Amino acid sequence: MHTNATSSELFDNLRLELRRGCLVVAVLAELYREHYGYALRKALGDDGLAIDENTLYPLLRRLESQGLLVSQWREEEKRNKRFYRLSPLGEEVLPNLLAEWREMSAALERILGGRSLAADPAPASQDKEEN
Amino acid sequence: MHTNATSSELFDNLRLELRRGCLVVAVLAELYREHYGYALRKALGDDGLAIDENTLYPLLRRLESQGLLVSQWREEEKRNKRFYRLSPLGEEVLPNLLAEWREMSAALERILGGRSLAADPAPASQDKEEN
Repeated sequence: MHTNATSSELFDNLRLELRRGCLVVAVLAELYREHYGYALRKALGDDGLAIDENTLYPLLRRLESQGLLVSQWREEEKRNKRFYRLSPLGEEVLPNLLAEWREMSAALERILGGRSLAADPAPASQDKEEN
Repeated sequence: MHTNATSSELFDNLRLELRRGCLVVAVLAELYREHYGYALRKALGDDGLAIDENTLYPLLRRLESQGLLVSQWREEEKRNKRFYRLSPLGEEVLPNLLAEWREMSAALERILGGRSLAADPAPASQDKEEN
Protein backbone atom coordinates (compact mmCIF):
# COMPACT_ATOMS: atom_id res chain seq x y z
CA MET A 1 0.00 0.00 0.00
CA HIS A 2 2.86 2.39 0.78
CA THR A 3 5.87 2.68 -1.44
CA ASN A 4 9.19 3.83 -0.03
CA ALA A 5 8.85 7.12 -1.89
CA THR A 6 5.51 7.76 -0.20
CA SER A 7 6.91 6.93 3.20
CA SER A 8 9.81 9.35 2.85
CA GLU A 9 7.53 12.07 1.44
CA LEU A 10 5.16 11.47 4.34
CA PHE A 11 7.99 11.83 6.83
CA ASP A 12 9.14 15.06 5.18
CA ASN A 13 5.65 16.52 5.50
CA LEU A 14 5.31 15.51 9.15
CA ARG A 15 8.74 16.92 9.83
CA LEU A 16 7.83 20.25 8.22
CA GLU A 17 4.61 20.39 10.21
CA LEU A 18 6.57 19.75 13.39
CA ARG A 19 9.25 22.32 12.54
CA ARG A 20 6.87 25.09 11.50
CA GLY A 21 5.71 26.17 14.95
CA CYS A 22 9.12 25.64 16.46
CA LEU A 23 10.87 27.81 13.87
CA VAL A 24 8.65 30.74 14.76
CA VAL A 25 9.60 30.40 18.42
CA ALA A 26 13.28 29.95 17.59
CA VAL A 27 13.37 33.01 15.32
CA LEU A 28 11.61 35.16 17.89
CA ALA A 29 13.90 33.91 20.66
CA GLU A 30 16.99 34.61 18.56
CA LEU A 31 15.71 38.15 18.03
CA TYR A 32 15.82 39.13 21.67
CA ARG A 33 19.08 40.42 20.22
CA GLU A 34 19.04 42.39 17.01
CA HIS A 35 20.29 40.60 13.88
CA TYR A 36 20.24 41.19 10.16
CA GLY A 37 18.97 38.34 7.99
CA TYR A 38 22.22 36.62 7.13
CA ALA A 39 23.57 36.80 10.69
CA LEU A 40 20.26 35.49 12.04
CA ARG A 41 20.34 32.56 9.65
CA LYS A 42 23.91 31.81 10.68
CA ALA A 43 23.03 32.06 14.39
CA LEU A 44 20.11 29.66 13.96
CA GLY A 45 22.31 27.23 12.05
CA ASP A 46 25.05 27.43 14.69
CA ASP A 47 22.43 26.65 17.32
CA GLY A 48 21.33 23.56 15.38
CA LEU A 49 18.36 24.89 13.42
CA ALA A 50 19.42 25.08 9.80
CA ILE A 51 16.88 27.09 7.88
CA ASP A 52 16.59 27.81 4.21
CA GLU A 53 16.63 31.45 3.00
CA ASN A 54 13.36 30.80 1.20
CA THR A 55 11.82 29.84 4.52
CA LEU A 56 13.47 32.44 6.73
CA TYR A 57 12.86 35.64 4.77
CA PRO A 58 9.14 35.11 4.20
CA LEU A 59 8.84 34.15 7.87
CA LEU A 60 10.57 37.38 8.95
CA ARG A 61 8.21 39.41 6.76
CA ARG A 62 5.22 37.58 8.18
CA LEU A 63 6.33 38.07 11.79
CA GLU A 64 6.96 41.76 11.14
CA SER A 65 3.55 42.19 9.50
CA GLN A 66 2.01 40.51 12.56
CA GLY A 67 3.74 43.13 14.70
CA LEU A 68 6.02 40.67 16.51
CA LEU A 69 9.21 42.07 15.00
CA VAL A 70 10.45 45.50 14.08
CA SER A 71 13.07 46.12 11.43
CA GLN A 72 15.35 48.94 10.50
CA TRP A 73 17.61 49.52 7.49
CA ARG A 74 21.09 50.57 8.56
CA GLU A 75 24.51 50.75 6.98
CA GLU A 76 27.09 48.32 8.32
CA GLU A 77 30.46 47.69 6.72
CA LYS A 78 29.40 49.97 3.86
CA ARG A 79 26.36 47.87 3.05
CA ASN A 80 22.72 48.56 3.80
CA LYS A 81 21.29 45.79 5.92
CA ARG A 82 17.88 45.25 7.40
CA PHE A 83 18.12 44.59 11.12
CA TYR A 84 15.34 42.77 12.96
CA ARG A 85 14.50 42.44 16.61
CA LEU A 86 11.53 41.63 18.83
CA SER A 87 8.90 44.35 19.09
CA PRO A 88 7.32 45.17 22.45
CA LEU A 89 4.42 42.94 21.37
CA GLY A 90 6.87 40.15 20.53
CA GLU A 91 8.45 40.52 23.97
CA GLU A 92 4.99 40.13 25.47
CA VAL A 93 4.01 37.08 23.41
CA LEU A 94 7.26 35.11 23.34
CA PRO A 95 7.43 34.09 27.04
CA ASN A 96 3.93 32.60 26.70
CA LEU A 97 4.94 30.65 23.60
CA LEU A 98 8.03 29.39 25.40
CA ALA A 99 5.88 28.29 28.34
CA GLU A 100 3.61 26.46 25.88
CA TRP A 101 6.61 24.74 24.33
CA ARG A 102 7.87 23.72 27.77
CA GLU A 103 4.47 22.23 28.64
CA MET A 104 4.33 20.26 25.41
CA SER A 105 7.85 18.94 25.91
CA ALA A 106 6.97 17.81 29.43
CA ALA A 107 3.78 16.14 28.17
CA LEU A 108 5.69 14.34 25.44
CA GLU A 109 8.26 13.11 27.96
CA ARG A 110 5.42 11.80 30.16
CA ILE A 111 3.79 10.02 27.22
CA LEU A 112 7.05 8.36 26.32
CA GLY A 113 7.68 7.43 29.95
CA GLY A 114 10.87 5.46 30.21
CA ARG A 115 11.09 5.26 26.42
CA SER A 116 13.94 7.25 24.94
CA LEU A 117 13.01 10.19 22.72
CA ALA A 118 15.75 9.04 20.37
CA ALA A 119 15.36 6.40 17.71
CA ASP A 120 14.44 3.47 19.93
CA PRO A 121 12.92 0.42 18.28
CA ALA A 122 9.21 0.19 19.05
CA PRO A 123 8.15 -2.83 21.06
CA ALA A 124 5.89 -5.27 19.24
CA SER A 125 2.21 -4.50 19.84
CA GLN A 126 0.01 -7.06 21.52
CA ASP A 127 -2.09 -9.27 19.21
CA LYS A 128 -0.34 -7.75 16.24
CA GLU A 129 -1.81 -8.17 12.79
CA GLU A 130 -1.32 -6.70 9.35
CA ASN A 131 -4.25 -4.69 7.99
CA MET B 1 -1.53 49.64 16.05
CA HIS B 2 -2.41 46.43 17.94
CA THR B 3 -5.50 46.17 20.09
CA ASN B 4 -5.57 43.72 22.99
CA ALA B 5 -8.05 41.57 21.10
CA THR B 6 -5.62 41.31 18.20
CA SER B 7 -2.75 40.45 20.50
CA SER B 8 -4.65 37.62 22.19
CA GLU B 9 -5.93 36.33 18.85
CA LEU B 10 -2.39 36.46 17.52
CA PHE B 11 -1.12 34.46 20.49
CA ASP B 12 -3.86 31.86 20.01
CA ASN B 13 -2.86 31.40 16.37
CA LEU B 14 0.83 31.08 17.19
CA ARG B 15 -0.02 28.64 19.95
CA LEU B 16 -2.10 26.52 17.57
CA GLU B 17 0.68 26.54 15.01
CA LEU B 18 3.13 25.41 17.68
CA ARG B 19 0.80 22.70 19.01
CA ARG B 20 -0.14 21.25 15.61
CA GLY B 21 3.05 19.36 14.88
CA CYS B 22 3.51 18.35 18.49
CA LEU B 23 0.01 16.88 18.74
CA VAL B 24 0.73 14.55 15.85
CA VAL B 25 3.83 13.26 17.60
CA ALA B 26 2.03 12.96 20.93
CA VAL B 27 -0.90 11.04 19.42
CA LEU B 28 1.42 8.68 17.56
CA ALA B 29 3.54 8.15 20.68
CA GLU B 30 0.46 7.44 22.80
CA LEU B 31 -0.60 4.82 20.24
CA TYR B 32 2.42 2.59 20.74
CA ARG B 33 -0.30 1.07 22.93
CA GLU B 34 -3.76 0.50 21.49
CA HIS B 35 -6.51 2.89 22.64
CA TYR B 36 -10.03 3.74 21.61
CA GLY B 37 -10.82 7.41 21.04
CA TYR B 38 -12.15 8.36 24.44
CA ALA B 39 -9.40 6.54 26.33
CA LEU B 40 -6.76 8.12 24.09
CA ARG B 41 -8.14 11.57 24.74
CA LYS B 42 -8.13 10.89 28.47
CA ALA B 43 -4.56 9.56 28.36
CA LEU B 44 -3.37 12.67 26.49
CA GLY B 45 -5.15 14.91 28.98
CA ASP B 46 -3.67 13.02 31.93
CA ASP B 47 -0.23 13.48 30.39
CA GLY B 48 -0.80 17.23 30.10
CA LEU B 49 -1.99 17.58 26.51
CA ALA B 50 -5.68 18.43 26.67
CA ILE B 51 -7.18 18.03 23.21
CA ASP B 52 -10.62 18.79 21.92
CA GLU B 53 -12.71 15.98 20.39
CA ASN B 54 -13.12 18.11 17.28
CA THR B 55 -9.36 18.19 16.93
CA LEU B 56 -8.58 14.62 17.94
CA TYR B 57 -11.04 12.66 15.81
CA PRO B 58 -10.23 14.36 12.51
CA LEU B 59 -6.53 13.96 13.35
CA LEU B 60 -6.98 10.22 13.96
CA ARG B 61 -8.79 9.86 10.63
CA ARG B 62 -6.06 11.79 8.87
CA LEU B 63 -3.26 9.73 10.46
CA GLU B 64 -5.06 6.52 9.55
CA SER B 65 -5.57 7.67 5.97
CA GLN B 66 -1.85 8.47 5.81
CA GLY B 67 -1.16 4.88 6.87
CA LEU B 68 0.43 5.79 10.21
CA LEU B 69 -2.35 4.22 12.30
CA VAL B 70 -4.52 1.16 11.97
CA SER B 71 -7.92 0.86 13.58
CA GLN B 72 -10.29 -1.95 14.41
CA TRP B 73 -13.87 -1.97 15.63
CA ARG B 74 -14.32 -4.26 18.63
CA GLU B 75 -16.91 -4.76 21.33
CA GLU B 76 -15.84 -3.80 24.84
CA GLU B 77 -18.21 -3.60 27.78
CA LYS B 78 -21.10 -4.28 25.40
CA ARG B 79 -20.28 -1.29 23.21
CA ASN B 80 -18.63 -1.18 19.83
CA LYS B 81 -15.47 0.90 19.99
CA ARG B 82 -12.89 1.78 17.41
CA PHE B 83 -9.40 0.96 18.64
CA TYR B 84 -6.35 2.66 17.15
CA ARG B 85 -2.68 1.85 17.27
CA LEU B 86 0.51 2.58 15.35
CA SER B 87 0.84 0.78 12.03
CA PRO B 88 4.17 -0.72 11.00
CA LEU B 89 4.73 2.46 8.94
CA GLY B 90 3.95 4.55 12.02
CA GLU B 91 6.46 2.54 14.03
CA GLU B 92 9.02 3.29 11.34
CA VAL B 93 8.30 7.02 11.15
CA LEU B 94 7.75 7.91 14.80
CA PRO B 95 11.32 7.44 16.09
CA ASN B 96 12.55 9.84 13.39
CA LEU B 97 9.96 12.43 14.37
CA LEU B 98 10.94 12.05 18.01
CA ALA B 99 14.59 12.54 17.08
CA GLU B 100 13.59 15.69 15.17
CA TRP B 101 11.67 16.97 18.18
CA ARG B 102 14.66 16.30 20.42
CA GLU B 103 16.94 18.22 18.06
CA MET B 104 14.62 21.21 17.96
CA SER B 105 14.31 21.23 21.74
CA ALA B 106 18.08 21.18 22.10
CA ALA B 107 18.42 23.99 19.55
CA LEU B 108 15.83 26.09 21.36
CA GLU B 109 17.63 25.55 24.67
CA ARG B 110 20.88 26.68 23.03
CA ILE B 111 19.21 29.79 21.58
CA LEU B 112 17.83 30.70 24.96
CA GLY B 113 21.16 30.00 26.61
CA GLY B 114 20.92 30.80 30.27
CA ARG B 115 17.49 32.32 29.79
CA SER B 116 14.68 30.26 31.34
CA LEU B 117 12.17 28.72 28.92
CA ALA B 118 9.44 29.80 31.33
CA ALA B 119 7.83 33.24 31.42
CA ASP B 120 10.91 35.29 32.09
CA PRO B 121 10.76 39.04 31.50
CA ALA B 122 12.68 39.97 28.38
CA PRO B 123 15.70 42.22 28.93
CA ALA B 124 15.51 45.66 27.37
CA SER B 125 17.09 45.69 23.92
CA GLN B 126 20.06 47.90 23.29
CA ASP B 127 19.32 51.29 21.76
CA LYS B 128 15.63 50.59 22.13
CA GLU B 129 13.10 52.62 20.24
CA GLU B 130 9.41 52.37 19.46
CA ASN B 131 8.47 51.70 15.85
